[in-house]
Amino acid sequence: MKAMVYHGPGTATWEEVPDPTLQEPTDAVVKIETTTICGTDLHILKGDVPAVTDGRILGHEGVGVVTEVGDAVSRVKVGDRVIISCISKCMECDYCREGLTSHCETLGGIGWIFGHLIDGTQAEYVRVPFADNGLIPLPEGVTPEQGTMLSDILPTGFEIGVRYGDVSEGDVVLVVGAGPVGLAAVMTARSSGAAKVIAVDGNAFRLEAARDFGATDTVLAGPEALEQVRALGRKGAGVDVAIEAVGLPETFAMCLDAIRPGGRVANAGVHGKPVSFPIERDWINNITITTGLVNATTAPQLLEDIMAGKIAPEKFVTHRFTFEEWEKAYDTFSRATEERALKVIVTNA
Amino acid sequence: MKAMVYHGPGTATWEEVPDPTLQEPTDAVVKIETTTICGTDLHILKGDVPAVTDGRILGHEGVGVVTEVGDAVSRVKVGDRVIISCISKCMECDYCREGLTSHCETLGGIGWIFGHLIDGTQAEYVRVPFADNGLIPLPEGVTPEQGTMLSDILPTGFEIGVRYGDVSEGDVVLVVGAGPVGLAAVMTARSSGAAKVIAVDGNAFRLEAARDFGATDTVLAGPEALEQVRALGRKGAGVDVAIEAVGLPETFAMCLDAIRPGGRVANAGVHGKPVSFPIERDWINNITITTGLVNATTAPQLLEDIMAGKIAPEKFVTHRFTFEEWEKAYDTFSRATEERALKVIVTNA
Repeated sequence: MKAMVYHGPGTATWEEVPDPTLQEPTDAVVKIETTTICGTDLHILKGDVPAVTDGRILGHEGVGVVTEVGDAVSRVKVGDRVIISCISKCMECDYCREGLTSHCETLGGIGWIFGHLIDGTQAEYVRVPFADNGLIPLPEGVTPEQGTMLSDILPTGFEIGVRYGDVSEGDVVLVVGAGPVGLAAVMTARSSGAAKVIAVDGNAFRLEAARDFGATDTVLAGPEALEQVRALGRKGAGVDVAIEAVGLPETFAMCLDAIRPGGRVANAGVHGKPVSFPIERDWINNITITTGLVNATTAPQLLEDIMAGKIAPEKFVTHRFTFEEWEKAYDTFSRATEERALKVIVTNA
Repeated sequence: MKAMVYHGPGTATWEEVPDPTLQEPTDAVVKIETTTICGTDLHILKGDVPAVTDGRILGHEGVGVVTEVGDAVSRVKVGDRVIISCISKCMECDYCREGLTSHCETLGGIGWIFGHLIDGTQAEYVRVPFADNGLIPLPEGVTPEQGTMLSDILPTGFEIGVRYGDVSEGDVVLVVGAGPVGLAAVMTARSSGAAKVIAVDGNAFRLEAARDFGATDTVLAGPEALEQVRALGRKGAGVDVAIEAVGLPETFAMCLDAIRPGGRVANAGVHGKPVSFPIERDWINNITITTGLVNATTAPQLLEDIMAGKIAPEKFVTHRFTFEEWEKAYDTFSRATEERALKVIVTNA
């Protein structure tokens, strides 16, 4: 088969590799129909994720059709069209049982293994460990493109932003950063009953996208952004929830500065540096800060929300490519704001 | 009447002042029977709380008997023996309604006003605003000394440590700092079902007290403390909840370092400096950090726990003084570790 293979910083090529095979009775093999590129894949290509070594097939998102199942697989069968969850999970360890599948102990404490510690989904076929847990049948009425957005991006915004931030009916929610994760948070904050969703970004195209995803207010990043955001909170005292979807000290600080007493900061950004926490100010403010890697346990609920017309993840898809155009797909996604790209779909066609 | 009056940094004296009177129909006047000194009072005396001005009567804890009530007071009557909550609250603003009485909007965003923005409880009499909300009748079978521990210290450890930390049945809980707040957290973590409560402190007397309050394990602060604590967590992966009850960057850092993936840090310490948050490590660890000033809304539940024999707040009381011995009481409390003092009771006798 052919696959996108990582060969060290700066290099990944679409090349011939051996077909994957079943290795454990709990495995399945899936023929990929649609997949996408994640910001994490760009980090890997930059060399930021040293656990990814030469020869690894990239990718952790996608929809496909099951072609083989091991003897212990019972919930999916050959021929099923499935969403591949970005998180693999045994569902038997303590962490999986408490819903913390992102830290599955059986997998060594990290549930994200596709395109990281094992071969991934940017390929014609992928081997899926613990297939009964990691594959979600795609219902009639949900397209493969919509399903691909449920592998990672939509659950990340929903679980790590909206749910960890405890977004409740009537809340005023700030989302800092209107890239794919931020937009997923915008969309699911609105479907969760937020009264106002304020998106902040430095890019006008992304703010336009945020409005399309359900933001009620948009604020261009800049020296006056904080004051504008706080004024949109109830009685001008700040917002109820701030979702960080950038990963920089200044955007994290903005979230802390923007919340009211009793407010919550849900960090969904991937950070490379420590941040300063002004606890000498905030010890008295009854605030909550959360962080996290997605557990991807909410895909079933999100599927229901798609079918009920409450969310429309197809809005993420701005560009479409085929498996013969991987280079172009990566190039477009790596220049996302310039190309007005949100998520690119790459199809085995 | 006589009262402990603040006269600027370093000076407070037991002196004659005018009796308090009703100012609003929602006020009551209470004759103090027992009161105590809080760490916050020592901070005020050092000049750390500039909102407290010359002439202010100190104190925000105590039990007494109602001597006067305004026309709008209906839940307490003259002659009732009551606990005075350290938090005053209107119970009508948005924050009070959501349980965030510590930030009561009617009181200007801060529910702690006794001995801070209005005259306090280290006096023969005190005026209590919103008396229906701030006075809790002392049930038969609960002593005034026990009741005094429900004004502030026990709710602080319980609400800001145990509840914000979401301590659940079977959890392994770390409490860093075994002063009064830490000990309140130890006691209520155990009564909330924690399987293990590990107390860390630099003082052997306090660790001994922690064991008496219910700690299953104690660790002397030092270079090996973190490793010892982590080893006591499930599978050595760290503790489920860490409660910070000191207020220093190094103790806050210890809490973050000690928790497992999915763990919680509940900050109950009062901090004077920002801390570094290693979010480049923790963005992926699904952690929660909380902070807060007590709401003191759990006093009724804590009263039930006392009556059911689940908690024993009389253990806090190591020293007793009369109103004629205020100077000695402050002196003893300000040298607490040396004097083996936890809480001092000062009685109008």
